[in-house]
Amino acid sequence: MAPDRFDAEHDPVPDRPTTGWSTVDDAIADAGAVGFVAVGGRFDATLRYLTRFEGPEREYAVVRAAGTSVLCAPHGYVTRAERQFDGRIATERVGDPAGERAAAVLDDLGGNPTGSAAATVLVPPTIPHDAAVYLERAGYDPRSTAAVAETRATKSAAEIDAIRAVQRAAAAAVERVERLLAAADVDGGVLTDDGGPLTTERLRRAANAELATCGVADAGNTLVYGGRGGRGAPGVGGVDPTGSDPQLEAGDPVAVAVAPCGPHGYHGCLARTFVVDSDGGWERRAYVAVESALDAGLAEVEAGAVAAAVGREAHAELAAFGFEPGAEAGVDGPAAPGHGVGLSRRERPWLDADAELEAGNVVAVGPAVTDPERGTVRLSALVVVTEDGSERLGDGEWSFAPRA
Amino acid sequence: MAPDRFDAEHDPVPDRPTTGWSTVDDAIADAGAVGFVAVGGRFDATLRYLTRFEGPEREYAVVRAAGTSVLCAPHGYVTRAERQFDGRIATERVGDPAGERAAAVLDDLGGNPTGSAAATVLVPPTIPHDAAVYLERAGYDPRSTAAVAETRATKSAAEIDAIRAVQRAAAAAVERVERLLAAADVDGGVLTDDGGPLTTERLRRAANAELATCGVADAGNTLVYGGRGGRGAPGVGGVDPTGSDPQLEAGDPVAVAVAPCGPHGYHGCLARTFVVDSDGGWERRAYVAVESALDAGLAEVEAGAVAAAVGREAHAELAAFGFEPGAEAGVDGPAAPGHGVGLSRRERPWLDADAELEAGNVVAVGPAVTDPERGTVRLSALVVVTEDGSERLGDGEWSFAPRA
Repeated sequence: MAPDRFDAEHDPVPDRPTTGWSTVDDAIADAGAVGFVAVGGRFDATLRYLTRFEGPEREYAVVRAAGTSVLCAPHGYVTRAERQFDGRIATERVGDPAGERAAAVLDDLGGNPTGSAAATVLVPPTIPHDAAVYLERAGYDPRSTAAVAETRATKSAAEIDAIRAVQRAAAAAVERVERLLAAADVDGGVLTDDGGPLTTERLRRAANAELATCGVADAGNTLVYGGRGGRGAPGVGGVDPTGSDPQLEAGDPVAVAVAPCGPHGYHGCLARTFVVDSDGGWERRAYVAVESALDAGLAEVEAGAVAAAVGREAHAELAAFGFEPGAEAGVDGPAAPGHGVGLSRRERPWLDADAELEAGNVVAVGPAVTDPERGTVRLSALVVVTEDGSERLGDGEWSFAPRA
Repeated sequence: MAPDRFDAEHDPVPDRPTTGWSTVDDAIADAGAVGFVAVGGRFDATLRYLTRFEGPEREYAVVRAAGTSVLCAPHGYVTRAERQFDGRIATERVGDPAGERAAAVLDDLGGNPTGSAAATVLVPPTIPHDAAVYLERAGYDPRSTAAVAETRATKSAAEIDAIRAVQRAAAAAVERVERLLAAADVDGGVLTDDGGPLTTERLRRAANAELATCGVADAGNTLVYGGRGGRGAPGVGGVDPTGSDPQLEAGDPVAVAVAPCGPHGYHGCLARTFVVDSDGGWERRAYVAVESALDAGLAEVEAGAVAAAVGREAHAELAAFGFEPGAEAGVDGPAAPGHGVGLSRRERPWLDADAELEAGNVVAVGPAVTDPERGTVRLSALVVVTEDGSERLGDGEWSFAPRA
């Protein structure tokens, strides 16, 4: 086995980010609530953010009340909970439903002192219904709060380090596809190499193999789409290759989009488009338009800017070149102009919303144009918002023609 | 790029399984309910099973009432919904919350004809709370049902084909690790190759790169653990390599466990253990015990057998060899003796439960023994239950010493 191209294996893993409870405590106080309960599995970003615990897929709970945070450790995960969670670990009744255990912890913390009227408990909107019902049966009134989702939009230095690390892997994966395209032969118009015709599915697998070699998960988010005249519908989702698997031809725009999940659960986001042996037609003009739109969008990014201005400027630039914003592959309608990136692949701030950007937001700006006959051209950049602009997060430059 | 070792790329993808609605319709009738509503994102196995639709991560809904099934297509996914879902597609109000849209569809289907009393609607236990609240506000009374989870335990021929396909990829990934171990040099007692010391993290990445090359997702489930005396704590979860990354030594049991997600969302499950240059001590005796336990467990598998008998016989065999059932890596307590495998990595039937096995169950039997000073030995087999026994699903044989 050749040494890994990506050297994160021998670099230290970024420090595990930590989360304080002040946002939750403030929300509890503002709502006159007695506490906060979140229930979910390991894919639940709220739970991951608050606990930093990598639990099982099945549901577990975290409770905050009376200034104390308690993780209801799932069966078999007590040792890991103790290692990863900075708070109290409840080990009682580990086989019981998460909502029931959370209610018992709330009771222990004096959550419902009178017992006469239902005491308000804040919950994320997506808490499982059965958990909410257990809380209700125990005399609590679950009320949704978006406080945690809002707080997650602003990243700490440790969170930005984690995103920078996974973004380096994203860049390595895209570069692997770029190298395969740069080395391809054109045989009767079709791109080939020693492995036969270069198909979008082969390129997708190569990108994912590179992500795996870098030690991060492709998270089912890798898309490679190319080909014109409808040949380009990709196998979407990464786990269900039922799309067509077209052979790529000289002149096809080949778009690669990855959003891997890396250290501590943070995501990257990167899209590039390459064209082998372009004759300088539509794809060249589309590329210049998208490049300009990306620059125009990035120029708007700074603390205090309205998030939607980023998307608006990017789209205006596309229009100035005579293009309309493109659709995402396999998806109808115009692509979102961009979004926050963190424990969720896509999260606040949304670049078509009215909110103001804040320093510490991490946003992906990704304009695209699509033509049903010619294909898709897209580029993206991942940046952290600063007081007076933005800082790129390790995803390098781009090139129309693939570089070896 | 070398041609893929695994040739699924050029084999036809297994047919997409389909699901009828009779289970849901029967549950509706039994409960005197007016319909059924499920809400979730693309990782929700209930939704995937009922709709076969690969949606986005954010929530969407499916509704069954009056003999009609309706998928509330999420924003941007109408075309894909039409391609993948065999039923009606609701495109109204695509930006609204999934629960609100589901309630409106129920109303359209005549779900609450009187409006005077709350009409019962069946929901999976894990439906998001906000969706249940929308249903309640619209005059419905959500009541949990486990009917879909129970039905999912018995697989159709198409589902078994999908599992067989992903299990072939699982076998290829484990074989890649086996080949790396077989080719390793022993240098001062430490396993090495051209890339330097062979560490558990390097082997984990190699397994995941092979899965990616086969076109399936590692799904964050790959574990490689080896080393004795506590050196062997693995980086768990696949996306957060914060565990130690020990160098492997001659005589170390090296356990590899994968549970990739492949065509149509179905999982595989495979565990093997290899020892380079064993001197025939504890690890050899443990291997023989685990091998016998696996055989003993498999011998119990047939339609009509009590599921727990499989685990009981496997554990009894370990005890006969003087071993106790081992813990899972990074997890406390004895490993589960086995479980069903399907759209969830672990699902019914549970091999420590009293339920009877049925023909068409797909179960992983996976005994293990762990010694804190010496390491872990585990083996598993994935089988489909038949009337008079079981049939192995494409995961080959096993070997104590790695084969080249």
